[in-house]
Amino acid sequence: MSEQAGKPRLGVAMIGYAFMGRAHSQAWRTAPKFFDLPLAPEMTVLVGRNKQAAQAAADQLGWSDVETDWRAVLERDDVDLVDICTPGNTHAEIAEAALAAGKHVLVEKPMANTVAEAESMAAAARAARAQGVHSMVGFTYRRVPAVQLARQLVEAGRIGQVRQVRAQYLQDWLADETAPLSWRLDKELAGSGALGDIGAHAVDLTMFITGQRFAGVSGLLETFVPERPVAESFTGLHGTGGSQRGPVTVDDAALGIARLESGAPVTLEATRFAWGRKNALRIEVTGTKGALAFDFEEMNVLNLYEAADDAATSGFRRILVTEPEHPYVEAWWPPGHGLGYEHGFTHQVVDLINALAEGREPSPSFEDGLHVQRVLDALERSAGQESRWTQIEDTERS
Amino acid sequence: MSEQAGKPRLGVAMIGYAFMGRAHSQAWRTAPKFFDLPLAPEMTVLVGRNKQAAQAAADQLGWSDVETDWRAVLERDDVDLVDICTPGNTHAEIAEAALAAGKHVLVEKPMANTVAEAESMAAAARAARAQGVHSMVGFTYRRVPAVQLARQLVEAGRIGQVRQVRAQYLQDWLADETAPLSWRLDKELAGSGALGDIGAHAVDLTMFITGQRFAGVSGLLETFVPERPVAESFTGLHGTGGSQRGPVTVDDAALGIARLESGAPVTLEATRFAWGRKNALRIEVTGTKGALAFDFEEMNVLNLYEAADDAATSGFRRILVTEPEHPYVEAWWPPGHGLGYEHGFTHQVVDLINALAEGREPSPSFEDGLHVQRVLDALERSAGQESRWTQIEDTERS
Amino acid sequence: MSEQAGKPRLGVAMIGYAFMGRAHSQAWRTAPKFFDLPLAPEMTVLVGRNKQAAQAAADQLGWSDVETDWRAVLERDDVDLVDICTPGNTHAEIAEAALAAGKHVLVEKPMANTVAEAESMAAAARAARAQGVHSMVGFTYRRVPAVQLARQLVEAGRIGQVRQVRAQYLQDWLADETAPLSWRLDKELAGSGALGDIGAHAVDLTMFITGQRFAGVSGLLETFVPERPVAESFTGLHGTGGSQRGPVTVDDAALGIARLESGAPVTLEATRFAWGRKNALRIEVTGTKGALAFDFEEMNVLNLYEAADDAATSGFRRILVTEPEHPYVEAWWPPGHGLGYEHGFTHQVVDLINALAEGREPSPSFEDGLHVQRVLDALERSAGQESRWTQIEDTERS
Amino acid sequence: MSEQAGKPRLGVAMIGYAFMGRAHSQAWRTAPKFFDLPLAPEMTVLVGRNKQAAQAAADQLGWSDVETDWRAVLERDDVDLVDICTPGNTHAEIAEAALAAGKHVLVEKPMANTVAEAESMAAAARAARAQGVHSMVGFTYRRVPAVQLARQLVEAGRIGQVRQVRAQYLQDWLADETAPLSWRLDKELAGSGALGDIGAHAVDLTMFITGQRFAGVSGLLETFVPERPVAESFTGLHGTGGSQRGPVTVDDAALGIARLESGAPVTLEATRFAWGRKNALRIEVTGTKGALAFDFEEMNVLNLYEAADDAATSGFRRILVTEPEHPYVEAWWPPGHGLGYEHGFTHQVVDLINALAEGREPSPSFEDGLHVQRVLDALERSAGQESRWTQIEDTERS
Repeated sequence: MSEQAGKPRLGVAMIGYAFMGRAHSQAWRTAPKFFDLPLAPEMTVLVGRNKQAAQAAADQLGWSDVETDWRAVLERDDVDLVDICTPGNTHAEIAEAALAAGKHVLVEKPMANTVAEAESMAAAARAARAQGVHSMVGFTYRRVPAVQLARQLVEAGRIGQVRQVRAQYLQDWLADETAPLSWRLDKELAGSGALGDIGAHAVDLTMFITGQRFAGVSGLLETFVPERPVAESFTGLHGTGGSQRGPVTVDDAALGIARLESGAPVTLEATRFAWGRKNALRIEVTGTKGALAFDFEEMNVLNLYEAADDAATSGFRRILVTEPEHPYVEAWWPPGHGLGYEHGFTHQVVDLINALAEGREPSPSFEDGLHVQRVLDALERSAGQESRWTQIEDTERS
Repeated sequence: MSEQAGKPRLGVAMIGYAFMGRAHSQAWRTAPKFFDLPLAPEMTVLVGRNKQAAQAAADQLGWSDVETDWRAVLERDDVDLVDICTPGNTHAEIAEAALAAGKHVLVEKPMANTVAEAESMAAAARAARAQGVHSMVGFTYRRVPAVQLARQLVEAGRIGQVRQVRAQYLQDWLADETAPLSWRLDKELAGSGALGDIGAHAVDLTMFITGQRFAGVSGLLETFVPERPVAESFTGLHGTGGSQRGPVTVDDAALGIARLESGAPVTLEATRFAWGRKNALRIEVTGTKGALAFDFEEMNVLNLYEAADDAATSGFRRILVTEPEHPYVEAWWPPGHGLGYEHGFTHQVVDLINALAEGREPSPSFEDGLHVQRVLDALERSAGQESRWTQIEDTERS
Repeated sequence: MSEQAGKPRLGVAMIGYAFMGRAHSQAWRTAPKFFDLPLAPEMTVLVGRNKQAAQAAADQLGWSDVETDWRAVLERDDVDLVDICTPGNTHAEIAEAALAAGKHVLVEKPMANTVAEAESMAAAARAARAQGVHSMVGFTYRRVPAVQLARQLVEAGRIGQVRQVRAQYLQDWLADETAPLSWRLDKELAGSGALGDIGAHAVDLTMFITGQRFAGVSGLLETFVPERPVAESFTGLHGTGGSQRGPVTVDDAALGIARLESGAPVTLEATRFAWGRKNALRIEVTGTKGALAFDFEEMNVLNLYEAADDAATSGFRRILVTEPEHPYVEAWWPPGHGLGYEHGFTHQVVDLINALAEGREPSPSFEDGLHVQRVLDALERSAGQESRWTQIEDTERS
Repeated sequence: MSEQAGKPRLGVAMIGYAFMGRAHSQAWRTAPKFFDLPLAPEMTVLVGRNKQAAQAAADQLGWSDVETDWRAVLERDDVDLVDICTPGNTHAEIAEAALAAGKHVLVEKPMANTVAEAESMAAAARAARAQGVHSMVGFTYRRVPAVQLARQLVEAGRIGQVRQVRAQYLQDWLADETAPLSWRLDKELAGSGALGDIGAHAVDLTMFITGQRFAGVSGLLETFVPERPVAESFTGLHGTGGSQRGPVTVDDAALGIARLESGAPVTLEATRFAWGRKNALRIEVTGTKGALAFDFEEMNVLNLYEAADDAATSGFRRILVTEPEHPYVEAWWPPGHGLGYEHGFTHQVVDLINALAEGREPSPSFEDGLHVQRVLDALERSAGQESRWTQIEDTERS
């Protein structure tokens, strides 16, 4: 990090530039405009295999330079942090190489496609940390102000000891049987279906808000539509040649009943078939003294019930989490002027930069990401064994 | 049934007169005032062990006569139907005797405390049916207009084939650890806790709206507060003598993942510890063409999503089920003038009388009640065996 | 009142038996079943001009006797109270005669069709009161538990001094232009349209919850559909002979801006053309320390905001007004088991009987009804004079 | 406009850099990253009276250069458009000079503090338009996707002819009596209070969605807290010297009943005293065939009722306006990933640039802004004359 305008700079290389790359670019660009950051991030280089396409993306998204081989950026002195936005099956290799090269790493979720990959990554992160090199997984829903507030309230004891959680992530973009195949429906590329793509968020949000890990789970997976039309643009690993339809090799929906390390029961559900639910990441946490409820479809709202309220006027309080007293909000707009999806990415950059400047490991760490992976894996194994209860190992803590 | 005012009469004997007895009395009294019934119900006799208390209740609730032994009413010619409102552990004996005596039977839910009892009752109901004697279980939430509408829409194919169900029944009356013991927390009297008391409704509503039975389940039970203060008025089977606290021997919360006979996955939850949820019996049913969502805390509303709506204006439709086009509603008030909890009981009387007049078995039958019992039993057994998947037998159909 | 079963009886004569007659009958029948009343109401006699129809109604609704001339009941010793459910243009004559005959009076809203009638009625009520004879207007929405709770909270100072009110009553049953004429659309029979029929409730609820009267108003009336098809069954005062369409002579919508006696500004609206709003009687009252919001379409809910809540967790509290701590609720069902439209009528009977037993004038009094009439009249006069500000006289207080 | 990267550039000068300046900067920066624009906007120069502060703002917000006198930018060849974010009392002078200098103008709302200023500005805009120089007023709430969708649905006839509108803008940031004075409470600086600041949005949204102008209005203004503490940092025009408290010279709340040019009645309300309502810009439009309802506190939702739906399943449809079929949304994120307050500003830049590239006057024009001003002025004059009906002139149309 070199000094610039009084602040050390943080050179960033971003690998991949699809949907997630656009979101990350907006975050790197916007964070320093609204937040007073200890480091000045620079959008140094974008990496894409196709030079021309990568250059067009870099121009559009605001990156200064382009590389076609991710290994090249590991050797550049002007790169301090590698931001990995590629598909999950590439994460382990890139992240471990970057950490070994002394670059901080931000990796999109899911952290990896298998527990083995995740374990290897977590080990690499621990080793790097000892050298002052840090890593983070991109569970951005943690950075929604209402979710941060939920965590703060649990931490402060406002709802007492956690007794029960219900966590769901409901979407409907596959409910139409004629929707075509994509890489997200191919097990070798995506690892799993609803389970890893969106169920991972439900698991992470449960961990984040309760401050607990999972102890065990019983699960069930379902694929409602086992074959789908092949889009012309699609090339899966199982080359579908001239055929019209190809197999869906991942789950469409994942259900689970689980327990946290405290024993608290949890219901889990992730589905891409919930007609009418567009992005309903929902969590309700009940404790000994109250309860919290959140739904991303109303992302600027947190509902809070406090048992200590007097009986005649108790009820869930609909908190508009848009006030200067709320996490992140003061940097933005006046009261009531809600934020959107992308702000979570900006807040992620803010939290990451603050942690790096203070020499702290940011959160969620690779160990956290590994734990999410283990929960998903246990649920999947349980589903394959008549839903029997499956313990979740937890040997690492950051 | 003798003729009276041009209509055959239906003499009713009600056994028990606590909370449920009050609700049933209001229904018997009110149904003929608002609905044109083929039989004229008469509130002939109320049965209670304590003569004086029973007489006071009969005067208050509008019953003409009183008996202290339920066997006595089976011999009365002026009694055509026995309405059983006693605790679950007495249902089998009374119901079977009544059917054998040629009396129709309405029994409150849960139909029985064990599968064995329920099997015996279902057998008795089948035998009686052959003699023109009918029986019914009191799952009154089926009679909420919004729930009936949901069933009609599923039956008419408005949401296509059922793909997924999530069913919950959330209450909070035990969330306070200082709430005292009651018979509902004693396994020998109540059979189970949240599972049988409210989980039964979630199971029945799933069956009713989807028109399907359950194939299997994986479950988990939890008792959050294993000991509670003994109220002075309480006398459990385990006489607590002079002690201050007694054991809770039932579940506080029950969770399950299940499949219907079509294979459709279901999430189930029943809890008495969901702070802020007072009577949240919720069900969301997603099909191939749309979805339905209901929450008893807004009992006059049904939410409907139809995938065929044009993309720019699709969304869950909030249907106020208070219009003359809706089930039962025309008999009551003008548009928008909502109904309450007790109307389900009145509608139950209406449906029951219509079925009896037509010589049909009313619904839900004892076979339906038995199936609910089997689901609860399977969930409980699964919970005792590491949540392993447990098949649900289904040998009877009415 | 003669003694019966240890309690003095209250003989009731009900005049009229249409929609309102059914609601009142259900209330007289039900109140003593759920509430411990100091007087035992008896459904003594129903009055209807057509003997046969009246007898059928009496049989159906549970009245012991029938009269065809309302004057006859004033001479009966077994009648203590006259319950007037006829159209508004007959209220004054019947009520005044009944009071003069020493009978208590309950009169449906609107109390009268003109201010002059209402003034005469209020004078008669004052005179009767001196003789221990009491009168009441049937604004039953005051008896919804959530509305009572709102009043209690304002009275207790929970929202401080009232600053602003917005009160609306939105329906849509006339929005369809092909809906036929009815007496409610004939000025001579109905007095006014949305203004008097439903606007009266918005005015009364404002008075009740704030505890204040109105000082002045500026208004606007609109008739969207000036002519409608004549239903075959309809006979208006302007006999429409063989014609196909007849004139609508009342307002379809009424809008106002007003001030309470404290100066607090109020927005008022009543319309029968608000597509999708079935019975949305809504009121939001903001004070110096908080705010309250109610919508009859969610009649079991009151929303409360308290400014004193800490900034990070303040928000409208959604109170389910279904708990034993809430007005009237303990007499009914367990927590969370909501009430319906008709319960307001039962609560009205309860409050009326309690007042009579204690020798108090029940509330709302005829003076209250007169004030509502004056507000409606002022709004209508303002609308006829370019919406100019119109003072509301207030010379009477009960 | 010079060519650059294949696109003509649009040099922008922004005057003022407080809250609105930050929002506009984010919009100029972000629009070209997500939308394919026909012109390439350049953040050429920021204008602020204090050189040092302006330079710091320019560095933070991303402007290339700084000027301290707004007149200087009118002479710069690299400036094509002037974006005016200063207080309302300066708008007329700057806008007219800019237009005269051949610069396009975007001016924040309220367009002016008086009708006279607005008339002069509209005349200048008409004159400039003839020279190919364009102008626009910054009513960004028009650019919320749900609001655009509402407009499209009205235009397409989905709700038929407009019958009624209720429009409110409710905030609570002044409800606390101890909140200090600010320039927004000084009539000479701010023109009016809630009326012009937020009521203007309610008026504009009504115009935009209905496509109609206002014909007349009857109004009422209220100042609840006439004196407030003087913040140390505050210097009003009435220098408050050493005094502790100063006068509030604007309205705290404004109420109106109005008619559109079609005669459709409208209720209007703007208040800064609605405890618990943080930014509730609400509009409900009812037509002959349906209704629309929007509340900015749920900015990603539009509610639609269609009378043609079958009676048993009609209801307000809760449309999540987050899908690719919705206005502006495809440029952003996947389904269900909501937008926030600032996106309206970005969409404003998009619409403005598209209009400029096509040589069209963007909307809302200065004539539209003038009409809003006339409605506010008429409401204020009515309030000063006993709320009498006040016609609204409408001599200009763009």
